[in-house]
Amino acid sequence: MKQYQEMTREELLTQKEQLTQTYSRLQAKGLKLNMARGKPGADQLELSLPMLDVLSSKSSCVTESGLDCRNYGELLGIPEARKLFGEYMGVTPEETIVVGSASLTFMYDCMARAMLLGVLGGEKPWCRYDKVKFLCPVPGYDRHFTICETLGVEMIPISLSEWGPDMDLVEKLVSEDETVKGIWCVPKYTNPLGGSYSDEAVRRLAALKPAAKDFRIFWDNAYAAHYVYEDTPVLNILEECKKAGNPDMVYMFGSTSKITFPGAGVAFFAASKANVDFTAKQLDAQAISWDKMNMLRHVRYFKDVDGIRAQMDKHAAILRPKFDAVLSTLEAELGGTGAGSWVKPKGGYFVTYMSMPGCAKRIVSLCKDAGVVLTGAGATHPYHRDPEDSYIRLAPSFPSPAELAQAMEVFCAAAKLAAVEKLLA
Amino acid sequence: MKQYQEMTREELLTQKEQLTQTYSRLQAKGLKLNMARGKPGADQLELSLPMLDVLSSKSSCVTESGLDCRNYGELLGIPEARKLFGEYMGVTPEETIVVGSASLTFMYDCMARAMLLGVLGGEKPWCRYDKVKFLCPVPGYDRHFTICETLGVEMIPISLSEWGPDMDLVEKLVSEDETVKGIWCVPKYTNPLGGSYSDEAVRRLAALKPAAKDFRIFWDNAYAAHYVYEDTPVLNILEECKKAGNPDMVYMFGSTSKITFPGAGVAFFAASKANVDFTAKQLDAQAISWDKMNMLRHVRYFKDVDGIRAQMDKHAAILRPKFDAVLSTLEAELGGTGAGSWVKPKGGYFVTYMSMPGCAKRIVSLCKDAGVVLTGAGATHPYHRDPEDSYIRLAPSFPSPAELAQAMEVFCAAAKLAAVEKLLA
Repeated sequence: MKQYQEMTREELLTQKEQLTQTYSRLQAKGLKLNMARGKPGADQLELSLPMLDVLSSKSSCVTESGLDCRNYGELLGIPEARKLFGEYMGVTPEETIVVGSASLTFMYDCMARAMLLGVLGGEKPWCRYDKVKFLCPVPGYDRHFTICETLGVEMIPISLSEWGPDMDLVEKLVSEDETVKGIWCVPKYTNPLGGSYSDEAVRRLAALKPAAKDFRIFWDNAYAAHYVYEDTPVLNILEECKKAGNPDMVYMFGSTSKITFPGAGVAFFAASKANVDFTAKQLDAQAISWDKMNMLRHVRYFKDVDGIRAQMDKHAAILRPKFDAVLSTLEAELGGTGAGSWVKPKGGYFVTYMSMPGCAKRIVSLCKDAGVVLTGAGATHPYHRDPEDSYIRLAPSFPSPAELAQAMEVFCAAAKLAAVEKLLA
Repeated sequence: MKQYQEMTREELLTQKEQLTQTYSRLQAKGLKLNMARGKPGADQLELSLPMLDVLSSKSSCVTESGLDCRNYGELLGIPEARKLFGEYMGVTPEETIVVGSASLTFMYDCMARAMLLGVLGGEKPWCRYDKVKFLCPVPGYDRHFTICETLGVEMIPISLSEWGPDMDLVEKLVSEDETVKGIWCVPKYTNPLGGSYSDEAVRRLAALKPAAKDFRIFWDNAYAAHYVYEDTPVLNILEECKKAGNPDMVYMFGSTSKITFPGAGVAFFAASKANVDFTAKQLDAQAISWDKMNMLRHVRYFKDVDGIRAQMDKHAAILRPKFDAVLSTLEAELGGTGAGSWVKPKGGYFVTYMSMPGCAKRIVSLCKDAGVVLTGAGATHPYHRDPEDSYIRLAPSFPSPAELAQAMEVFCAAAKLAAVEKLLA
């Protein structure tokens, strides 16, 4: 088949007629499907059910160090949880704080505390500056951008490839502009591209020479062990920061949301001991302690990092056929059409589709009208401004395989129709 | 026995010698006891152990409305939790948000959001004002004061009796000063006095005419069902605010920290529907959802408010002998000495001791040196400034009865010695 771009107007009109028919037929099915968010499927949630049996009325709820998890105390988390999740993040227990049930909330907290109280090494709280800016590799995670937008932090988009952000630009902006206070990074299986930061990208980030003394890398390692096809190791940013003489420049985040139960697992923060101590002092106004019972439940269930890895193998086995289905449908339906391109991720929760410029909003709207909800077009960019109107994030994890097949049929019909419409416009 | 105040210098010197001997004898025991915080005792924690059996690998984790508690979603809490804890707080489910595991964290959050983003009806975020003030009834809860101090909110102490704050002063300050943005209240079994706000106090609070359009009553109903001797109903502040035409003026807080597991229960926020909607929009940047599994566990365990009340009867039965012991020891050892006075609370977690002026720090220090840790003197006042150096908060819940007897022996010896020292100085 010819690419759409090479077709005559007449050929395109024929295509449009056929595609409109296909789309109408699909629309008539009255589907109600959702590929919007990186939600694990029910089969993935089943994997963690045995964790619910770990603590019962017969269990001891006391840590190895003699701490009663049923009572107040231990603001930074129980020692065994700091050890396990510290190791998972590649840091020591002293460099780890285990918190509530969502890393997103703790990221918001870290930004809010920076605004209200300042960060280690800073001269004043960020809200006392006329302007605070964050670098935002794009395509990126919409909820990071929402935190910035809500708190009035100006976002500067930085183009992101599969192996990392445009480091030349990052280095230039960070070293020249002292209002640039941080950068968002999802280093492994980036959201949504699915690539992983190269060693060079990590080393150059760690070696930044920021104009702002209180610059921070917000390192959202949400998918640290979440491979689908292949585990792609990413350098330990804290170690690299230490080597580069910037030990306090990074905040790392992670959670078990996509390991055990989304929003009902545990989240963690990792950073230099100095950052942990500084953060602990600020947290003292905010909490007495987080849910230690759930920490204990997680630690006793997994035992060690190998326990987590074994669980991640099971997740990957469930996710792989779903990713296969998305990728093979894209290839079969859109391959060679010129309507768009996509990235085969190694892990994470998303497949990124890049349409012909100017089509993403139309595709999302067509899908919606046929009962298939996608992440809003533009969500991958700060202020929802995708200048090319091209990026769409597909989240294949939640629907069942049968639903996924239906949803992808709709998506591909919409993607083709939007492309043809665009070329005819 | 004569009151110390009526003794001659010689009699006081004799007393001092005897008391010093007693104190030294107690100090030699090398005790290590803690009456500093309102922590439930181990026997109280046992009461909630069956809750750990509610969810197991065999359980359905789906709400009545079909929501899977194991996955993301439902930012305001699962419907059955909003219903149960709304009823517990005396409001509708729509007026309730069920959040993480600590109400203190949500109070901090509400204050932080007010600072960064503003509140419903406000012109701008509070951090954009030169000065923001909060009224702080004293004696009060140190962690409320820490939130204000940390966030730079100026605190104005307001004297609190057993039936409420000095309402004449509150009305004057709130109506005249638009930088007064709120007031902290613990309406039932106040921390630490143990009294409950009178109907008049609640009605006058609800009918305030604040100069600030975004004035808020932070109503920390931490002990809503936590009677020890007698349940003392407090008027429903939200209802009274509605009647007075101030429906949006109050934020109510509560948690199950002293019902189930401290720091590992659920916390809730209650306010007008308009406040809930406004807050929900702000929260959207901060969280996807809180731990719904723990909400489900609580709801299935308690079933209804009667279930909570039955549990509170058991707590009261455990706490009562401890309060009895403290009160009877105070009476036996300090009654008639003139060293100080105390309040018999109806509920809550504390007994307040008011020493002869200028003795509180000395008593706490003497106790510490004899191995008995008390809440720091001054903790009951903003900036730790108790102008009389008189208030001491005793927390009898955590020690065992035998430990409590030892701790009170030390306390009474210290209280007497400090009084005699003061009169001799």
